[in-house]
Amino acid sequence: MPKPKTDSRDRLIETAARLFQRQGYQGTGLSQIVEESGAPRGSVYFLFPGGKEELAIEAIEQSTLMVRKQIELAAGNSHSVEEWIRSLAAHFIEDLESSNYLQGCPISTVTLESVPDSPALQKACRLAYDLWIEDITIVLIRFGIHKEDAGELAVFLLSAVEGALILCRAQGSAKPLEIGTKLSIELVKAKQHGIMEP
Amino acid sequence: MPKPKTDSRDRLIETAARLFQRQGYQGTGLSQIVEESGAPRGSVYFLFPGGKEELAIEAIEQSTLMVRKQIELAAGNSHSVEEWIRSLAAHFIEDLESSNYLQGCPISTVTLESVPDSPALQKACRLAYDLWIEDITIVLIRFGIHKEDAGELAVFLLSAVEGALILCRAQGSAKPLEIGTKLSIELVKAKQHGIMEP
Repeated sequence: MPKPKTDSRDRLIETAARLFQRQGYQGTGLSQIVEESGAPRGSVYFLFPGGKEELAIEAIEQSTLMVRKQIELAAGNSHSVEEWIRSLAAHFIEDLESSNYLQGCPISTVTLESVPDSPALQKACRLAYDLWIEDITIVLIRFGIHKEDAGELAVFLLSAVEGALILCRAQGSAKPLEIGTKLSIELVKAKQHGIMEP
Repeated sequence: MPKPKTDSRDRLIETAARLFQRQGYQGTGLSQIVEESGAPRGSVYFLFPGGKEELAIEAIEQSTLMVRKQIELAAGNSHSVEEWIRSLAAHFIEDLESSNYLQGCPISTVTLESVPDSPALQKACRLAYDLWIEDITIVLIRFGIHKEDAGELAVFLLSAVEGALILCRAQGSAKPLEIGTKLSIELVKAKQHGIMEP
């Protein structure tokens, strides 16, 4: 019995998200996505008339949502800002280590490759970062960071994670992310306790 | 009169470095590099028998050196760690703004696309980050940061810049780098004055 349409759709999006995360947009062919997804070859242009770009936008949206859930889940399970940062970092480190340092940020490679050649992809990537910054800001405030610091801290913490994930991939080591975790916690706690006025 | 060989070589490497920085390794064809460089079409496989990968390694080495010189030059012209960080950031912001947010880190796109599919490219990218971390560490120590903090701070500051450059490209704005500059300076000064013990 053929698999239902929605299943092919989900598998194509999941496979695309994984391949874009590991090898980027330019290095991933539509044929590889179809093959690794196990979806019927003919289904892809039926389900995604816009081809690779349309599939990529859906993949970015799925990755965006996945990270949002991780941010929220880690926050719900943590009793302090320190615990929350550690929990998120542990998740990223697990992804890196279990993938032989192939799985860093799910969208950074696509962002760097696509901006600004594809306005649609850029828009999707930009929205991802905007939403993550918003989510991180909300959690920081919930953990007692002053409102006037939280927005800037969120941008900085996200920058530090994104950059550390690049260094981790280059070095084949989780060390840069471990250092980032330690110093991010120190920075946030110093801000929280107001001991670091500029 | 034909241009001398070394000139074609230099122009090929410079063009490759610029295109990899703007559009990545996968999205840059050898033919585009040759065309934009103005070098004779036949010269590229003569000068770079290893083709695009060999040319990319030379381009990464050139970009690595260029950033090392920027780090050193900015340090030489600065009287404090704060001035040095501001000076480097201004340089990156100028690159972003003058290129319509296309020119971020010269090697991050290649790093994310190539690791670990091309061991030779990975090695060149890894060396770049290692050297930048070493250079930043040395400058931090020169500006009075404790030796035991400088190495970790260097990794963290480089991570924050790399990540901020991704956000700047996605947002088409220098804001993330401006925020990164401000908080990096606060963090480094807090460490310098020992007011932020973990």
